[in-house]
Amino acid sequence: MDATVEELLAVLPADRVLTDPDLLAVHRRDEADLCAAGTPLAVVRPRDTAEVAATVRVAAAHGVPVVPQGARTGLTGAANAVDGALVVSLTGLDRVLEIDPAERIAVVQPGVVNADLSRAAAEHGLAYPPDPGSWESSTIGGNVSTDAGGMCCVRYGVTGEYVLGLEVVLADGEILRCGRRTVKGVAGYDLTRLFVGAEGTLGIITEITVRLRPAADEIRTLVALYPTVAAACGAVAAVTAAGHVPSMLELLDRTHLGAIEAYRPMGLPGTAAAMLLIATDTGDRAGAELAAIADCCRAAGASELYVAEDAEQAQALTAARRLAHPAMERLATQAFPSGRGGLVVDDVAVPRTRIAEFVTGVEEISARHGLLVAVVGHAGDGNLHPVIVVDRADPSSMDRGRRVFDDIMRLGLALGGTCTGEHGVGMLKRDWLARELGPVGMRVHQVLKAALDPSGILNPGKVIAPEWPQAGRRRPPPRLRASKKTDVARTVIP
Amino acid sequence: MDATVEELLAVLPADRVLTDPDLLAVHRRDEADLCAAGTPLAVVRPRDTAEVAATVRVAAAHGVPVVPQGARTGLTGAANAVDGALVVSLTGLDRVLEIDPAERIAVVQPGVVNADLSRAAAEHGLAYPPDPGSWESSTIGGNVSTDAGGMCCVRYGVTGEYVLGLEVVLADGEILRCGRRTVKGVAGYDLTRLFVGAEGTLGIITEITVRLRPAADEIRTLVALYPTVAAACGAVAAVTAAGHVPSMLELLDRTHLGAIEAYRPMGLPGTAAAMLLIATDTGDRAGAELAAIADCCRAAGASELYVAEDAEQAQALTAARRLAHPAMERLATQAFPSGRGGLVVDDVAVPRTRIAEFVTGVEEISARHGLLVAVVGHAGDGNLHPVIVVDRADPSSMDRGRRVFDDIMRLGLALGGTCTGEHGVGMLKRDWLARELGPVGMRVHQVLKAALDPSGILNPGKVIAPEWPQAGRRRPPPRLRASKKTDVARTVIP
Repeated sequence: MDATVEELLAVLPADRVLTDPDLLAVHRRDEADLCAAGTPLAVVRPRDTAEVAATVRVAAAHGVPVVPQGARTGLTGAANAVDGALVVSLTGLDRVLEIDPAERIAVVQPGVVNADLSRAAAEHGLAYPPDPGSWESSTIGGNVSTDAGGMCCVRYGVTGEYVLGLEVVLADGEILRCGRRTVKGVAGYDLTRLFVGAEGTLGIITEITVRLRPAADEIRTLVALYPTVAAACGAVAAVTAAGHVPSMLELLDRTHLGAIEAYRPMGLPGTAAAMLLIATDTGDRAGAELAAIADCCRAAGASELYVAEDAEQAQALTAARRLAHPAMERLATQAFPSGRGGLVVDDVAVPRTRIAEFVTGVEEISARHGLLVAVVGHAGDGNLHPVIVVDRADPSSMDRGRRVFDDIMRLGLALGGTCTGEHGVGMLKRDWLARELGPVGMRVHQVLKAALDPSGILNPGKVIAPEWPQAGRRRPPPRLRASKKTDVARTVIP
Repeated sequence: MDATVEELLAVLPADRVLTDPDLLAVHRRDEADLCAAGTPLAVVRPRDTAEVAATVRVAAAHGVPVVPQGARTGLTGAANAVDGALVVSLTGLDRVLEIDPAERIAVVQPGVVNADLSRAAAEHGLAYPPDPGSWESSTIGGNVSTDAGGMCCVRYGVTGEYVLGLEVVLADGEILRCGRRTVKGVAGYDLTRLFVGAEGTLGIITEITVRLRPAADEIRTLVALYPTVAAACGAVAAVTAAGHVPSMLELLDRTHLGAIEAYRPMGLPGTAAAMLLIATDTGDRAGAELAAIADCCRAAGASELYVAEDAEQAQALTAARRLAHPAMERLATQAFPSGRGGLVVDDVAVPRTRIAEFVTGVEEISARHGLLVAVVGHAGDGNLHPVIVVDRADPSSMDRGRRVFDDIMRLGLALGGTCTGEHGVGMLKRDWLARELGPVGMRVHQVLKAALDPSGILNPGKVIAPEWPQAGRRRPPPRLRASKKTDVARTVIP
């Protein structure tokens, strides 16, 4: 038996350490395509912080990499294993430890599923707003580690804005508690925000204190259809410029509308080039606010406008939006004779006034490379997801997919945007991160990484590419390779 | 001439380098009492980022400490000089570089005064919410470096929540640009938030991109009087528990009410033990919301309730609250025959449900040591400022002042609070920070500081005490000494 595994078994209950090859295969990767994945030495499923710390101490003693995983719903390979690593699956730390309605905070373990926290908060008349597309399956630990966004962020902000405090197991197995339970607090460096979005490269998050909000009022929802995606984007800019702050401002293009309607028929319009889905939740004011937003939408050239008649219809529209990803996955599967069609989901945030230029540019890139690229996203934030449909069985398709991806990244940065609005860097965007930050920014990243993880055992190769730094030297765009997705079903580990 | 000064003069225009002893004396300290201050070697007043970088490079080459300063309105000694340091005064970088109404962002230099940014934003129908008490004099750079709060933070959050991106001169003189101009963005570690609140110990901020909000509607204001401070605190908890999010929820005790009335007579009630000042700014809903809050206040035992009749009256009440600090300074000056009375302004944030325990505890501490301690603060945030009135001419008074300060810190931590809600750590609270964070937290602080400032030249002795670390070893509470405040007037540097 491997010496590391042997030592793990000496310090942990035996059922925490999994080495079955099928289970190892399941835990190789998250949902990102185009990212390499290795086979872990073992999967450790700790049940408390002490077990996480014990695992990291063993790994540190043996110089073995540690890759933290939540629900593996990430889209950048941030949770992908490297060969010989210990995967630490946090899904066993799945308790809501506390909800304090008077202080409006919750304390949760990282394996709690986003929607479960939302439901637990709702029982107290409170809300945990961040709502990534994966909210029914992704975990709070993963959300925090990627600083996940969602649909309501245009009004309520992203995950990091809700994180007050953390417990983190550091690279040497020591346990750090940082942050606070109070509304305000500025004691020392903002360690909490340093671990938020660090994708497990600086420490493993084992407990999270989040603030909650009073539950929002019922949403009022509006649908606006446009003859071009650019016209829809113009409406988004107009709504923002008029000072409106809706609780949702989503864009879906024709491909997405068709894919969702094919996936679950519900009468979505088939003819428009783009649809905006807009909600307000400001109680007595919501109706008037929605009417004012509708005026903006009409003035910006909407071909049709609908206001949801009741809460049920509003919820159905939101639910339809949430089907975008599975619907596009089915479209991709059916798009090629190989049956191996897939998606490369991109994630770019640009200044809100430039989303029209961005989508127009994406259309040009799509046409130039002869590959379908659909667009969906949180238009009110300027955060869009171009979805590239590729055939994994066709090297030419994969190669064009890579070039489309690179061209979209280049376009986003040229428009003053960022290479990731909410999905994170992982492995997929390491080189684009380096381009965005430049050599000084990358050096600061490396210095911080080396300070907190001097042996480099924590989630190696994520955020920062292993071959960095060569400060000042321009590197070629990343070579993305198609990865052989294992066909192992995502089974629940016994 | 000193070799460092000589080299500065070789790389900067001559008028940037000040060595006049009177000017050096002016730049020794901020407004904190009880903190040591040294005499700088020179005061450098750069006019752009390149000049800041050139200054830091010279300092790094000579191993000379660099102390950044804004308006020196801080209350923790974070801007205090050390002997032989270069003070870098950022007040010459005072331009609002850009306001983009469509993107709702502003780009400013660090020396811009808070209120000037607010006014510039208002011209575009926008608001920059963070409003520290010093807003008419403190600079955005100082606000960012301390993560300053204010009165509207109960609804709108503190400075850090508005900072999207920064330009920072690092310890070796390199220039880092981090963050973004987009609404969302999660590219890499959150470097921006690491520099926010770091009090100039990790880098010198030379440009700040902040997000703005649509201007709020007119405020509606309510005053509630209570027979005890604890009863007023109970009302705060009740308002919060009922789910209200007012735009201001301030507490003033009897001493503050009397001091303000003596400073500028405006008919504030003289008999109540405590007053809550509460505002809403939600337009059409503000009246109904204020009425519901008034019901909470009445049920919690208010002896009297007033609603401001119009905007003018509402503004007058807010203005009265803003006079708390100067009014208390005058009270302190007049309180002792020596004429050398002063204030030690503390800053504690506790869970909102525990503010009644906190103020009761502060009353006990005040009585035990025979020293007047008045309380004011952002009660809706749980962020209170006990204000200790001391006689600088009386060693016994100063000694008791120190013990009161320590007892208040101890009480705040015991109630689950933090040693600073918005003023920062500076020199005043270094030892209490260490108590709050514990040895692991302090070690992480040191590791980060050493990573970004390996020579320790950036604002040494702030946040982290020079004698740290002794991980695990308990240190005695800090020995605060009265400092001889210079009588040099705060003159504008020519």
